[in-house]
Amino acid sequence: MLEAIHSREDLLKLNTLQLEELSREIRTLLVDTVSVTGGHLASNLGTVELSIALNRVYDASKDRILFDVGHQCYTHKILNGRLEQFHTLRQFGGISGFPKPYESEADAFIAGHASDSVSVALGMAKARTLLHEDYDVCAVIGDGALTGGLAYEGIENVAASLEPIVIILNDNAMSINGNVGGMTKALSRMRLSEGYAGFKKRYRAVVGIDSDLYRFGHRVKEELKKKLFAGNMFSALGLNYLGPIDGHDIRELESAIRLARSLRMPVLLHVVTVKGKGCHYAEAHPDIYHGIGPFNKVSGKPLSVTEGFGDCMGRELCMLAASDARITAITAAMSDGTGLFDFSQHFPNRFFDVGIAEGHAVSMAAGMAKQGLLPVFAVYSSFLQRAYDMLLHDVALQKLHVVFCVDRAGIVGSDGETHNGVFDIAFLSTVPGMTILCPASFAELRSMLRMAIYELEGPVAIRYPRGGEGLYSEENTAPETLLREGDALTLVSYGTMINHVLAAAEVLAEKGTRCEVVKLGAAAPLKTSQVLNSLRKTGVFLMAEDVCAPGCLGERILADAEKHGISLKGSRLLNLGEGILPQGSVKELQHACGLDEDGIVRAALRLLGRDKETHE
Amino acid sequence: MLEAIHSREDLLKLNTLQLEELSREIRTLLVDTVSVTGGHLASNLGTVELSIALNRVYDASKDRILFDVGHQCYTHKILNGRLEQFHTLRQFGGISGFPKPYESEADAFIAGHASDSVSVALGMAKARTLLHEDYDVCAVIGDGALTGGLAYEGIENVAASLEPIVIILNDNAMSINGNVGGMTKALSRMRLSEGYAGFKKRYRAVVGIDSDLYRFGHRVKEELKKKLFAGNMFSALGLNYLGPIDGHDIRELESAIRLARSLRMPVLLHVVTVKGKGCHYAEAHPDIYHGIGPFNKVSGKPLSVTEGFGDCMGRELCMLAASDARITAITAAMSDGTGLFDFSQHFPNRFFDVGIAEGHAVSMAAGMAKQGLLPVFAVYSSFLQRAYDMLLHDVALQKLHVVFCVDRAGIVGSDGETHNGVFDIAFLSTVPGMTILCPASFAELRSMLRMAIYELEGPVAIRYPRGGEGLYSEENTAPETLLREGDALTLVSYGTMINHVLAAAEVLAEKGTRCEVVKLGAAAPLKTSQVLNSLRKTGVFLMAEDVCAPGCLGERILADAEKHGISLKGSRLLNLGEGILPQGSVKELQHACGLDEDGIVRAALRLLGRDKETHE
Repeated sequence: MLEAIHSREDLLKLNTLQLEELSREIRTLLVDTVSVTGGHLASNLGTVELSIALNRVYDASKDRILFDVGHQCYTHKILNGRLEQFHTLRQFGGISGFPKPYESEADAFIAGHASDSVSVALGMAKARTLLHEDYDVCAVIGDGALTGGLAYEGIENVAASLEPIVIILNDNAMSINGNVGGMTKALSRMRLSEGYAGFKKRYRAVVGIDSDLYRFGHRVKEELKKKLFAGNMFSALGLNYLGPIDGHDIRELESAIRLARSLRMPVLLHVVTVKGKGCHYAEAHPDIYHGIGPFNKVSGKPLSVTEGFGDCMGRELCMLAASDARITAITAAMSDGTGLFDFSQHFPNRFFDVGIAEGHAVSMAAGMAKQGLLPVFAVYSSFLQRAYDMLLHDVALQKLHVVFCVDRAGIVGSDGETHNGVFDIAFLSTVPGMTILCPASFAELRSMLRMAIYELEGPVAIRYPRGGEGLYSEENTAPETLLREGDALTLVSYGTMINHVLAAAEVLAEKGTRCEVVKLGAAAPLKTSQVLNSLRKTGVFLMAEDVCAPGCLGERILADAEKHGISLKGSRLLNLGEGILPQGSVKELQHACGLDEDGIVRAALRLLGRDKETHE
Repeated sequence: MLEAIHSREDLLKLNTLQLEELSREIRTLLVDTVSVTGGHLASNLGTVELSIALNRVYDASKDRILFDVGHQCYTHKILNGRLEQFHTLRQFGGISGFPKPYESEADAFIAGHASDSVSVALGMAKARTLLHEDYDVCAVIGDGALTGGLAYEGIENVAASLEPIVIILNDNAMSINGNVGGMTKALSRMRLSEGYAGFKKRYRAVVGIDSDLYRFGHRVKEELKKKLFAGNMFSALGLNYLGPIDGHDIRELESAIRLARSLRMPVLLHVVTVKGKGCHYAEAHPDIYHGIGPFNKVSGKPLSVTEGFGDCMGRELCMLAASDARITAITAAMSDGTGLFDFSQHFPNRFFDVGIAEGHAVSMAAGMAKQGLLPVFAVYSSFLQRAYDMLLHDVALQKLHVVFCVDRAGIVGSDGETHNGVFDIAFLSTVPGMTILCPASFAELRSMLRMAIYELEGPVAIRYPRGGEGLYSEENTAPETLLREGDALTLVSYGTMINHVLAAAEVLAEKGTRCEVVKLGAAAPLKTSQVLNSLRKTGVFLMAEDVCAPGCLGERILADAEKHGISLKGSRLLNLGEGILPQGSVKELQHACGLDEDGIVRAALRLLGRDKETHE
């Protein structure tokens, strides 16, 4: 069936039975592919029918369908020209796991960070109207993304605009507190007590999922759920509310979307879907199969589990919290990803999952710190960008002691450009009084976490990458550590990048070039005395860091050298340029950017005028 | 009466008549003081009774009262130990117009940027509960600040927390669409049709304000208003709703706040106040008297009106928009402040006031740009910090052509540390593909606005300060312009700071030191070839810029010089250090930071080893 779909016309020809068959085929393809490539499984399994219905109602080549976050766009991609390439999902050179306009006109806008779809939809709808064009605009937003304040700002403005826009609320939150599904057959006002709770009960009776696993940390989402079904929050916000609709009944969905579109008003269509639908392990544990690496497609068992910096941080934080009641932990809907799951179990009263609300997380942490708690906010580097103003305004101006565990710093890999944590060194460095620690090993992370909580003052960020430590497992927490002596060249780096630098220094030594290696333990305040001493000796500077060029430490070291009257024979800053990277494995991307052992060796030889040797 | 209030005990002794007398005295003091110092008049006149009631119910020395934005805290300051110093309001060395914990324990938290009070309150309430302490937490938030998504994130989390917190909604939005006042005498559910609209009508009949002036650009606030009074948005969000209450009846207020506090739950108390209350011109035109410079206290007439960069931008944009239907203008509740009032009148369909929602503004602009419009977002530098992630994610990754008119860049003066626009060069420089233009004159601003809209691609920011142009009124829009030749020293700057630099060069010339002056027209992409040429000649570098040190252009020029093998005899970067400045006039602050003519001359002489001459 799937192979026969080459266009929207083909899709429109199918009858209900054929559409159901198509859904099954797509689900099989999703599981087959994601079990090999890794990716977002549960959210995509939950939106197969929705994507089919959207593509039957709308013409994706001109109508603008905006997938919020975008981790539910796989079926849409399959239906829009990327079936053949689907096996390259999230691979270096392959198709992205998120919407990318450069891949296809059917991908209306970039996505990756949550809650922006309604705002973007309004901008597009206004453009349509002001330029007298004729197309439809539809935003598809999950209940998770709806916890972000940006979504409310968008909804407020959409309601005021009176623009024809359809917002589809893809409501699958019961994935969090155990699964729930079910359907209502009619478009009707939301009703908590009978409608939704009834389903939940019936569905549990059928599926029998134990919900204990997901009980903690999602009170906010729960609260939102209550609101949703309390009746008329959306109508109170000025939207025309339709729903709830069964998100796995294509016919029902299609007619509801057509109705919503026909109203020519801002409409919110409430669709209930089951995350992981049709795949028993994903349905049972949608959180685990939200974003996952390669797994055995029969059992669902992940092929490999590596201990990451986040896990290490979470364990250490639990240990510290056991003997200090002032420590609290905060996450913005990422308790597993950031290593806080155990904390949430051991210290439920001191654990705060605030939803996808990084700004709130930082302001709340500031309030906690002002009144004597020791808050630790664990957050992905790229998502902390959302809270830049709160870092400056709420935390820094009062020099409040908040600890930020900045996970997924540097290159993140297969999630691609929207998720890389490559701006943090630059933007965190502008925050007055901010200390930025850069552990290169688990031992350093543990030690720096204790330093951050107990020894330092004001805001402190600890920056570490996705994944685990490398060969370097020492504990050097000083601002600068001389790891290797030499005279030909000064190699400087920080964090786990030091592994590549040390390996490169080894290779260079074999080639007769003795490099001095200095590891920085902190990006702010930046201490450079050892680096400058080394530069005075070698006169050649090579910096390796996995961040964007503006605001990088290499540039600051160059400026320091100039200030101190050090005249270099040569210098080269290896970094990520403007900071936009494609997807791929971290290894592939580091290689492509010249930030691995090979790249560093090559750059060093070129700096020393020995580049012909690279081809020896 | 006022002089007799030395403590909360004194305040508690007063009877209703005395409290009313006290309110009148405070209002007189507010008008007397603000007419001399400038400041936020209307919002403070509207919260006299509320502040008195809060200080009778709560003990501000231990209970935590959080004023959102904080521009309504004058009465609170007067009642908490700052009556004597009140005449120093917003002056250099005087008391701040915003809450400052370093001034008094009664100022619970810093404020300045909108919508964070609920989040901070939750953090404080959690600290109280977890540390087993005993105090109350109360956030006071205006209906304007409620348009910010951060406030919703806070409310969602407060509702889920079940913490005893009182959120006071200070609802004065009718100030925008003409005035409204009135009161309801009972605690009751909100009712739009009878209650509120009735008041509006009666109040208009009495006061007879023509509302035309404020008609456009506030549809969002209007929509929010509708929601508020549609009934139960707050109860839908899980808060216990009380109100609306007359915000000018102290007794009524006091008992309502006591009731709210006694519930030991998250409560939202809805209070209706009149902005500008008790002062006829402020009540009639609350927008004009929101933030104002010195004025005649009888007539209300401002003592001086200067043409600012924002006005110049607004006029030019109107001209361009008249012949190009693709141009849209966006503001986040600052249409007057950013110079867009005329645009809002001439092109109401293309003007978007989104409320205090900078994130949404940027994402919406990205959607507009993607579909062919030419959006221009005019925003204060310090508030654009809220949209850092949207700049990166929604605009830059797709290289979308959005123009940002970044007003109030650099030192803003009497609003103080929360409002300075000193981080923009650093954070905007990290945004991939961002062009940052720095006009130094009105002529350059006009020209750069046209360049930004029609000649450049991708995101473009135009950065300009509060206030008007200086003596320099030329039009040099090139990335680098040699304004003055010399051999002793290279002086580099950009924006209106060039006025001080040119003046300093003149003074230095009189002292026999010929300085070369290079003006930068763009901060990104940063071109340095003329600067480097000049440095090769003079060997001495002096940079003057009104931004924070991390990420400043001076450092990047030093790094460039080092890369190009230029060995300097001396260098000095004049900037704002970590970027936290006290309040004062721009002139006073520039002087204090060494960023005026005097400071530059002094730094130059010191660099040249001629510092003894400064005392000649």
